[in-house]
Amino acid sequence: MFFHIKELQYHAKPDCPDPVFARRLQEVLGGQFGEITVAMQYLFQGWNVRGDGKYKDLLMDTATEELAHVEMLATMIARLLENAPMETLEQAMGDPVVAAIIGGSNPQHAIVTGLGAAPSDSNGYPWNGKYIAASGNLLADFRMNLTAESQGRLQVSRLYQMTNDRGVRDMLSWLLARDTMHQNQWIAAIRELEEKEGVIVPSTFPKECEIQAVSHVLYNFSRGDASACGPWAQGTAPDGGTFQYVAHPEPLAPAPQLPPAPPYVFDTPPHVLRDQNPGPHQPPMA
Amino acid sequence: MFFHIKELQYHAKPDCPDPVFARRLQEVLGGQFGEITVAMQYLFQGWNVRGDGKYKDLLMDTATEELAHVEMLATMIARLLENAPMETLEQAMGDPVVAAIIGGSNPQHAIVTGLGAAPSDSNGYPWNGKYIAASGNLLADFRMNLTAESQGRLQVSRLYQMTNDRGVRDMLSWLLARDTMHQNQWIAAIRELEEKEGVIVPSTFPKECEIQAVSHVLYNFSRGDASACGPWAQGTAPDGGTFQYVAHPEPLAPAPQLPPAPPYVFDTPPHVLRDQNPGPHQPPMA
Amino acid sequence: MFFHIKELQYHAKPDCPDPVFARRLQEVLGGQFGEITVAMQYLFQGWNVRGDGKYKDLLMDTATEELAHVEMLATMIARLLENAPMETLEQAMGDPVVAAIIGGSNPQHAIVTGLGAAPSDSNGYPWNGKYIAASGNLLADFRMNLTAESQGRLQVSRLYQMTNDRGVRDMLSWLLARDTMHQNQWIAAIRELEEKEGVIVPSTFPKECEIQAVSHVLYNFSRGDASACGPWAQGTAPDGGTFQYVAHPEPLAPAPQLPPAPPYVFDTPPHVLRDQNPGPHQPPMA
Amino acid sequence: MFFHIKELQYHAKPDCPDPVFARRLQEVLGGQFGEITVAMQYLFQGWNVRGDGKYKDLLMDTATEELAHVEMLATMIARLLENAPMETLEQAMGDPVVAAIIGGSNPQHAIVTGLGAAPSDSNGYPWNGKYIAASGNLLADFRMNLTAESQGRLQVSRLYQMTNDRGVRDMLSWLLARDTMHQNQWIAAIRELEEKEGVIVPSTFPKECEIQAVSHVLYNFSRGDASACGPWAQGTAPDGGTFQYVAHPEPLAPAPQLPPAPPYVFDTPPHVLRDQNPGPHQPPMA
Amino acid sequence: MFFHIKELQYHAKPDCPDPVFARRLQEVLGGQFGEITVAMQYLFQGWNVRGDGKYKDLLMDTATEELAHVEMLATMIARLLENAPMETLEQAMGDPVVAAIIGGSNPQHAIVTGLGAAPSDSNGYPWNGKYIAASGNLLADFRMNLTAESQGRLQVSRLYQMTNDRGVRDMLSWLLARDTMHQNQWIAAIRELEEKEGVIVPSTFPKECEIQAVSHVLYNFSRGDASACGPWAQGTAPDGGTFQYVAHPEPLAPAPQLPPAPPYVFDTPPHVLRDQNPGPHQPPMA
Amino acid sequence: MFFHIKELQYHAKPDCPDPVFARRLQEVLGGQFGEITVAMQYLFQGWNVRGDGKYKDLLMDTATEELAHVEMLATMIARLLENAPMETLEQAMGDPVVAAIIGGSNPQHAIVTGLGAAPSDSNGYPWNGKYIAASGNLLADFRMNLTAESQGRLQVSRLYQMTNDRGVRDMLSWLLARDTMHQNQWIAAIRELEEKEGVIVPSTFPKECEIQAVSHVLYNFSRGDASACGPWAQGTAPDGGTFQYVAHPEPLAPAPQLPPAPPYVFDTPPHVLRDQNPGPHQPPMA
Repeated sequence: MFFHIKELQYHAKPDCPDPVFARRLQEVLGGQFGEITVAMQYLFQGWNVRGDGKYKDLLMDTATEELAHVEMLATMIARLLENAPMETLEQAMGDPVVAAIIGGSNPQHAIVTGLGAAPSDSNGYPWNGKYIAASGNLLADFRMNLTAESQGRLQVSRLYQMTNDRGVRDMLSWLLARDTMHQNQWIAAIRELEEKEGVIVPSTFPKECEIQAVSHVLYNFSRGDASACGPWAQGTAPDGGTFQYVAHPEPLAPAPQLPPAPPYVFDTPPHVLRDQNPGPHQPPMA
Repeated sequence: MFFHIKELQYHAKPDCPDPVFARRLQEVLGGQFGEITVAMQYLFQGWNVRGDGKYKDLLMDTATEELAHVEMLATMIARLLENAPMETLEQAMGDPVVAAIIGGSNPQHAIVTGLGAAPSDSNGYPWNGKYIAASGNLLADFRMNLTAESQGRLQVSRLYQMTNDRGVRDMLSWLLARDTMHQNQWIAAIRELEEKEGVIVPSTFPKECEIQAVSHVLYNFSRGDASACGPWAQGTAPDGGTFQYVAHPEPLAPAPQLPPAPPYVFDTPPHVLRDQNPGPHQPPMA
Repeated sequence: MFFHIKELQYHAKPDCPDPVFARRLQEVLGGQFGEITVAMQYLFQGWNVRGDGKYKDLLMDTATEELAHVEMLATMIARLLENAPMETLEQAMGDPVVAAIIGGSNPQHAIVTGLGAAPSDSNGYPWNGKYIAASGNLLADFRMNLTAESQGRLQVSRLYQMTNDRGVRDMLSWLLARDTMHQNQWIAAIRELEEKEGVIVPSTFPKECEIQAVSHVLYNFSRGDASACGPWAQGTAPDGGTFQYVAHPEPLAPAPQLPPAPPYVFDTPPHVLRDQNPGPHQPPMA
Repeated sequence: MFFHIKELQYHAKPDCPDPVFARRLQEVLGGQFGEITVAMQYLFQGWNVRGDGKYKDLLMDTATEELAHVEMLATMIARLLENAPMETLEQAMGDPVVAAIIGGSNPQHAIVTGLGAAPSDSNGYPWNGKYIAASGNLLADFRMNLTAESQGRLQVSRLYQMTNDRGVRDMLSWLLARDTMHQNQWIAAIRELEEKEGVIVPSTFPKECEIQAVSHVLYNFSRGDASACGPWAQGTAPDGGTFQYVAHPEPLAPAPQLPPAPPYVFDTPPHVLRDQNPGPHQPPMA
Repeated sequence: MFFHIKELQYHAKPDCPDPVFARRLQEVLGGQFGEITVAMQYLFQGWNVRGDGKYKDLLMDTATEELAHVEMLATMIARLLENAPMETLEQAMGDPVVAAIIGGSNPQHAIVTGLGAAPSDSNGYPWNGKYIAASGNLLADFRMNLTAESQGRLQVSRLYQMTNDRGVRDMLSWLLARDTMHQNQWIAAIRELEEKEGVIVPSTFPKECEIQAVSHVLYNFSRGDASACGPWAQGTAPDGGTFQYVAHPEPLAPAPQLPPAPPYVFDTPPHVLRDQNPGPHQPPMA
Repeated sequence: MFFHIKELQYHAKPDCPDPVFARRLQEVLGGQFGEITVAMQYLFQGWNVRGDGKYKDLLMDTATEELAHVEMLATMIARLLENAPMETLEQAMGDPVVAAIIGGSNPQHAIVTGLGAAPSDSNGYPWNGKYIAASGNLLADFRMNLTAESQGRLQVSRLYQMTNDRGVRDMLSWLLARDTMHQNQWIAAIRELEEKEGVIVPSTFPKECEIQAVSHVLYNFSRGDASACGPWAQGTAPDGGTFQYVAHPEPLAPAPQLPPAPPYVFDTPPHVLRDQNPGPHQPPMA
């Protein structure tokens, strides 16, 4: 169960409205790696944990904080949109700033949300449930969490460079710090799980059921061998095996030949496929 | 530029057709963490690398291999669908196997693809470009790669348990081994990058621009303190800082008050929002 | 800012696992009118309100409760999935219950989420941000809220009929009651707003800018005149106007003729469109 | 069955081309609450009505009119795009109007549709079938209809403010009037249904199957009690019950504990979850 | 403008309800090549034609007929769902037909639409506006029309085989015939346009702006040369050129080297990319 | 199996960066008819062919070439984005070119991909698997291929007009030529199949199972008879039948009447539908 308090976790007030930046900021609210993603991801991971204890608690702590970040961003976007109507083309005459607003703002901020935030990204593509992972395997999921916090902090860093507004930068510097913490915490949790379980997910699948001869082989499928020089092509692998490099990979199975389709699916009939004459339009091949 | 050879990287031939398993197998072909995802993810990361060398080569090597896995899965699915029409309800009478096929197979395998594979997941949801990440920051992206290989191998492990067909299991044991390698390789590459750059993405964003006081703080937003017992709540953080635990987080900013909307957006007019009388239907509040 | 407490708002425990019902229950978790929809809808409406006071508070109260409903449903689904693997086709032999599970359960519950809930509907289609409305106009939005609670309660009612499990029914009876309250509350709020503003959204758009002659006209575009017998075809309209019925509507503007496309867009060239000869294959029309 | 006549229901001719406005106007053609939505929504509701009579007829009348509105908007957009190529960046030099066109127009209007309309919204997101509701319960559905007409008229009002073109405004003033009528008609129809059935959807679900003790309770889940002052917190509820206000809601069920996952799903193994030692990297907690 | 008449173009009445077939039939109602697709495609093509005359009229004629087909299918699906509740798992005991219904029917037909049709496909994926093409170039678009009618008739043929219901088959035999006509008509129209314009779309793009040396070359990018034996590898091409076959294609441009990213995007820094030492974990490469 | 070589099939190097054109060029990379579409379409068609030989080989040859085109476009977009940050609104002051960049570029190119390409279209909508067709019926599929190459070449033609950059135009002139070849090749292949099978897809469905009386009838559903003058309304049809024109089509089936819904779905109850009194608010109809 949740409770809401009306105060914000941190400030979310720009010095000035800026509808162009409002559009851009939507990316870290409702984009692939935005705050809705991490909030929902941690919630579903927490609810799906089969067992109790510190991992579940950590997930719920962080999920609940991310809801506060969604709130801060939604608030900031609404403020950036203050008094921001959609200008007409005429109004652009002689004024590049108006021209930039016409092009750089999101028309749905005016037409659809009435100067408010939306659960979508900087191009107006809606947030969706396929952005998240909650697999029941915490090591797999914490890697997704670390990814999301890494991609998210990267995006916030880029946004920080795209504004000079002190209020906006103040809020972003909060989010950057929290993303630093969240990267740190997921790395720490991943390390603990890897020490308990090993590094390969899932750890409990019996090794003899995979073809171990190729579990540590780098195949060179791209002309040139620059990839042979990395720590992934020789020496001890993270799971204790030994990396190998195969410079000229060969196929191990013949070219597939699918049998004809049964007539009741109305695929191209076998005789048409078989009849390999070039057809009446064309001279026979030399 | 690419070349195709007709032979398969490894066998993809079931002992028997099984349209129910064909539907399930679509998950690792066209699902969120299926082979199309890793193929496209590595391709776009490789093409977007600004610089040349071993990382780019490693990406292109692995991407090109994943195309071969897409091919193997598409071939396997087509073979699992051999002679698999859509049964009618009548045909289910007295035969639970037919009943199971009616329910467990994907109707689009018969109606749409004519007993072939589709670029979609086990529920028929199409693959889309939002599944992948290619951010230009290799550490962020390699974490996504490790995630995808972890979630992917987890799904293949589960699928392995859902079939007794030796041919299918043979192919899955190949994919499992390759996913082991790919987890190993991305871990090795991540470690190398972390040693060069440090663990926090992006490494080049100036620390003084984040609010460092909260870069290592775990806030307890969920009643109970089980999360205080983890390696993320005390001691040295992966980036060298010191974790702190805040048992009772407090908001740092006042409740937001948005100014009224301008009249030309036709939001609820301010006087309606201001007029807080309970309304004629109801007695005034005591 | 939010806090989480680990206890549930109400019980979410089935008597028995049932993976088929788990799939169906996803509809009211992650479907168009599921609990994620109302939670996100009320949150965004609350954050976007430009003004403070009871409406905003009501939105935040209800939004926060809906998060607890998402939690209850996610918990219930995880419990319904306990020990629910995906059966093989062989296992269906002779057992219609197994056959029903094979077909009626969601393969992603086993392959993707590892016996946990997902933010998607009963067909595995992911929740997305286009399900919600937060327009800044409370009367428009409260009508969406009333709709969502109506459609949602309807779906819960149907699900209630599809199970005999006492634990599941107990939880559904809680949700049904809360949906009753939420319908009641939005009706009460809508009535208050309508009394303050009038019934037509938006109330502040100047009437003289619409073509008032047709603001109360029912056009009969479908052969037959059954629609003439309703309260919408005569008498006083809700906004005080007088309904009219037009049995034989006529077009008021000529057929549109678009001018030719400029050559640089490479549309069909005008001379091809103009040249209306039937073409050499065909005899001229008699 | 349908017939088409080539004349338009009303004028759809701008004074001047304006590709920026063409992009914006797409919102009410192919957006969430655009004309395709209402046309398809009323069609599916009409076709799904189980029974005949005035409601079905009203739905078909209105659906058929909405097809004419889709036609008017598609025509208007094509005309707004006349001679509108996509300008190059060079052409923007010194001309803010060109700059505004570059940014404010939809590139797909030139590249994809060849100066024609598309079934998508103002950000190029395609219309989809999840925008509509057709549940078989007319009261639930008419509430959705009223919502769609309210959100739709709100959007048209905003668009009206964003142009000075007399031709465009003339068409919008037609749509505004028709939306006024449609709001009126759905309110009238809703009132009639509510009088026949009562206000809670679905009306036929037995009350004793919901937990009636909480059917009229407002829970205060958000700090502060502004929401206590509304007509939803006291007095008689629309369905005849009596509203209650609970200032300090308490959870009614214990924190959920999910049993361990079976080994064949390869979730995090129970011993890893149970073993709550902080791990070797970290000092034991004080 | 449109008019609706209540009678159907043709019969749409099954002998018996069949919820499993109802689910499958959704494919040709709301799937990629279903009737909504052709209706919307022809409408948008018709509205976007820049010029008047027989092509536009043909489009509007056919579009309007397709609306009648949507109506027939929606009606048929509602009738196939008559009295079709969602069975419980218990009810499957001993009855494979019930088991098949549990698995083979679409849960949303019961939970969401209340035994009515939905604008989605046989897996519940919603229809969307990206299924259609309306490019302004009639030859390009008529080819899409011919495709849609071909794929559509193919799907209807498959569905015909999946049912023995005489009423359903009667309706399908109508749709099959109409699809035959529509294939015929688009072929006839395409031939006429090709005779006027030539076969390459767009016909008006100046030939000297393409690299004509490769306009008729088949590159053999797949090992083996079976493709050399077709009418596309030699002889006169449809546009009058001469086909050529290149057995061993070579790249014509060097490997791309992207310059480093500017620091403000926080990509992987150039020194990390440049520093190609294998890293401290690993022995230097031999 | 695939191999990659690092060289490009053809040059992909602009004279100058241009972030606005980078956004537009995404259309033919990741849009509905972009290069990802044709690559994936030909791959899936090739893998799904049930039989071997020249058609399958042709598909794999062309698919593999299209992967090289995806690579060229991704490379070109990355180069067009060189040093292209997202400008701030302030920077637009006095400079329309900056204003145009603010509006005309895709914010995700800076925030999400770090100056790299993305698998999405010119509006940021992601590529998805529903863009392609691979039905198992080659004639149906080759028509889709011809369509895709026609729509694709049309889009490239339009893009060619939107830039003066010689490097960009050079690459586009390559793609234009290859699209010419691909249109030629699919036309040649279609002609061969049509000569073997006939023109109606699927050719093997028994004619007596369709209602042949209407297989060659053009119904005039749109007022006016311009469509009667085309080669589709009279004379010999492409399949050998004779076209007929019906000026005044009549419905052939009665208006549908659906029976009431069973009570357990909670649709509007039959008595409410039956009770056709106008309701207490309104005077009875005269």
